[in-house]
Amino acid sequence: MKNAVYPGSFDPITNGHLDVIKRSAKIFDKVIVAVLNNPNKNPMFSLEERVELIKYATADVENVEIHCFSGLLVDYVKEKKIDVIIKGLRAVSDFEYEFQMALMNKKLDEDVETLFMTTSSKYSYLSSSIVKEVFKFGGCIKGLVPEIVIEKMRSKL
Amino acid sequence: MKNAVYPGSFDPITNGHLDVIKRSAKIFDKVIVAVLNNPNKNPMFSLEERVELIKYATADVENVEIHCFSGLLVDYVKEKKIDVIIKGLRAVSDFEYEFQMALMNKKLDEDVETLFMTTSSKYSYLSSSIVKEVFKFGGCIKGLVPEIVIEKMRSKL
Amino acid sequence: MKNAVYPGSFDPITNGHLDVIKRSAKIFDKVIVAVLNNPNKNPMFSLEERVELIKYATADVENVEIHCFSGLLVDYVKEKKIDVIIKGLRAVSDFEYEFQMALMNKKLDEDVETLFMTTSSKYSYLSSSIVKEVFKFGGCIKGLVPEIVIEKMRSKL
Amino acid sequence: MKNAVYPGSFDPITNGHLDVIKRSAKIFDKVIVAVLNNPNKNPMFSLEERVELIKYATADVENVEIHCFSGLLVDYVKEKKIDVIIKGLRAVSDFEYEFQMALMNKKLDEDVETLFMTTSSKYSYLSSSIVKEVFKFGGCIKGLVPEIVIEKMRSKL
Amino acid sequence: MKNAVYPGSFDPITNGHLDVIKRSAKIFDKVIVAVLNNPNKNPMFSLEERVELIKYATADVENVEIHCFSGLLVDYVKEKKIDVIIKGLRAVSDFEYEFQMALMNKKLDEDVETLFMTTSSKYSYLSSSIVKEVFKFGGCIKGLVPEIVIEKMRSKL
Amino acid sequence: MKNAVYPGSFDPITNGHLDVIKRSAKIFDKVIVAVLNNPNKNPMFSLEERVELIKYATADVENVEIHCFSGLLVDYVKEKKIDVIIKGLRAVSDFEYEFQMALMNKKLDEDVETLFMTTSSKYSYLSSSIVKEVFKFGGCIKGLVPEIVIEKMRSKL
Repeated sequence: MKNAVYPGSFDPITNGHLDVIKRSAKIFDKVIVAVLNNPNKNPMFSLEERVELIKYATADVENVEIHCFSGLLVDYVKEKKIDVIIKGLRAVSDFEYEFQMALMNKKLDEDVETLFMTTSSKYSYLSSSIVKEVFKFGGCIKGLVPEIVIEKMRSKL
Repeated sequence: MKNAVYPGSFDPITNGHLDVIKRSAKIFDKVIVAVLNNPNKNPMFSLEERVELIKYATADVENVEIHCFSGLLVDYVKEKKIDVIIKGLRAVSDFEYEFQMALMNKKLDEDVETLFMTTSSKYSYLSSSIVKEVFKFGGCIKGLVPEIVIEKMRSKL
Repeated sequence: MKNAVYPGSFDPITNGHLDVIKRSAKIFDKVIVAVLNNPNKNPMFSLEERVELIKYATADVENVEIHCFSGLLVDYVKEKKIDVIIKGLRAVSDFEYEFQMALMNKKLDEDVETLFMTTSSKYSYLSSSIVKEVFKFGGCIKGLVPEIVIEKMRSKL
Repeated sequence: MKNAVYPGSFDPITNGHLDVIKRSAKIFDKVIVAVLNNPNKNPMFSLEERVELIKYATADVENVEIHCFSGLLVDYVKEKKIDVIIKGLRAVSDFEYEFQMALMNKKLDEDVETLFMTTSSKYSYLSSSIVKEVFKFGGCIKGLVPEIVIEKMRSKL
Repeated sequence: MKNAVYPGSFDPITNGHLDVIKRSAKIFDKVIVAVLNNPNKNPMFSLEERVELIKYATADVENVEIHCFSGLLVDYVKEKKIDVIIKGLRAVSDFEYEFQMALMNKKLDEDVETLFMTTSSKYSYLSSSIVKEVFKFGGCIKGLVPEIVIEKMRSKL
Repeated sequence: MKNAVYPGSFDPITNGHLDVIKRSAKIFDKVIVAVLNNPNKNPMFSLEERVELIKYATADVENVEIHCFSGLLVDYVKEKKIDVIIKGLRAVSDFEYEFQMALMNKKLDEDVETLFMTTSSKYSYLSSSIVKEVFKFGGCIKGLVPEIVIEKMRSKL
């Protein structure tokens, strides 16, 4: 049995994230979505809200668990006996940063393996921050994030 | 008759921007330079000053208009009945970001078209922020920005 | 009145090319699709066949003309009194090559302007050669090229 | 139980390939190394030799199988009931090409999933063709390919 | 006699920096490590501490001098009669930024020449900020920075 | 005293090459331009002609020598007691390939150091092959290669 972790800020979860989660869940026995508790950042949604939104959006995927984590990802991976880290790649700039992190994580723990998945081409322009930017100025974000996220974003106004 | 918009912060306008404006004005019937009113940023020049500097620098180009805008570019494009967005490209990093924005804008409004123009090779290293950085430390910025911008920057000291 | 040229080998035309042609035709008064006669290459379709396939695929677009050309694009542009060259961009590697060509063409003729259009994200992986490769091994290319191209490719077997 | 395929030309297998095979074998229940039979290319080693070299080099890895394939990878994946395709990534240029192939393969078969693994940084400059080039001019390739490959290459002189 | 300057923030010096310094010292008669005094940034180590750490780490390299500088690098280069600027390159994103700076510096002073050195592949993922990030969360940074830096970082806790 | 080698095919030398040679000659005591004898390629100019053209074009640079070499560059570097390899970089694609070669050369001989120089922005689109392509179709290559090269190319027609 093989477990994968899909780490991120998920502030909020987008349909691009959801696509990676669903595709990973077909490959691995369990996929842990690990929401990073980064106190330095000023998120739109609290850690609890972000976890709730992902739970709601992934309710129909059986082998997914949602957790929070703080500190180094490699420590979390070891503690939870996780086999691989899953990351989505959209563009060259993603690739360079993720590559650096994967090599660093391998240096920190030789056993930690990172696997990359291409984001579906229809979500290649999508990120949590661009969604928040568009929403802030009244743009339509339908189809970019789960419906529940749109409702929650509206209630924040 | 076809109109183009060339959006940006223009804090301040550089000779690279001017090059894109003049070349666009030969292709389109009207080129609207749209100065973004971004309250979150802390600009060197006020919105009014930025507009004035562009007006001065483009005084000899007939079919150029200078305006401000805030909010989503696609809304501005629709409201002003603009046909295309013009963006200048200098490097791979520009390309990836602009690509993302062009795809996002197309998602927000299927009719909005973005066209990219290569920056002249002699301005490939030029940006408003590098100009301000060089100026701050007493470097010579002659040939990088219009003369009027240098005068105005000196008066800010 | 502004004319644009969209040059290429089009061996054969793909739905990615067609997307660029149709979007360009909304912006410019006339779009000339210029099929390069490159005797060194060993194409799947003859020059005449390629022109015919594009004519068929663009039959519903009024302001499109299909021509062949050989030699330097800048000479063709000058001879035909064309205002801009249109190129589609899919990825960073496209960008670098096209950038080099645009700067070279500008050196050869200062008046020649190149404008780039992002390929629709759903065609970001598409090229004439990948289509031929997939077809050769019996893969389904429906949705990647116009129907008429599939028929013609089958008749080549 | 999950199976992965690691496709390639392997002409010859390098220590970079071997690194990807061994790391994949820890994640998946079975890893099939699929050697592409590409009649158009002019390989240094025959298909049989390439398979033999990989078998020898991976003799100590239990859950690895070596096979040949021709035609489309997606057809092979379906026929063999393979769950994921594994590819190694070294650089941005790898990334762009592999990205294109992964999206194309997904178009050809929605169920086919590609996962990317970073090549160990110490093999980031390594490829089969650079090994052959260096060997041709008498350079030392120790540490770049398995010992058995060096012997076999010497016997080809 | 040729002098080179290797400029940076060095907050703190890493083994990647040290590798560039030692290799440069074999090529040039004197290598000046120039620590940038950037008052806007909020460094972990003071300017004096950074200089001390580099001095300690390069104690066995004869032809290295450590200095601070502020303002424009080209002014410092001229004042110190330095022949070339040395920069390390790890990735494409480094390359683009450094390229822009090299061209800008050449514009500011035609005589200033920048030479780039590839970072050793084993340090390709290394930067001062990633080291601080890992350290903050209790990760092991042995082998990434000189021993003296680890001690000093511990004393900061 | 430090020697540098600037290796390449130089088929033919361009003004971009000349720019790198002249700038290198200011930094190093001797610059050896090493023309690669690659029997597999089908050059426009013979090895002797290429050497002659470079000699003519660099006649006013005192500390430059022109030689041919075949085989591995690292062997040539060792034999000639050369201190560094100089390469020009124009774009991201150059960077990736040259990076790979520099790391490979370092593996083959730990003492071999490669230094990269940015090509002047006005030659960023220039290569020997694009010059030959443009010339073949009657385009003007004045300003792209030394005058003597234009004459020689004409005599080849």
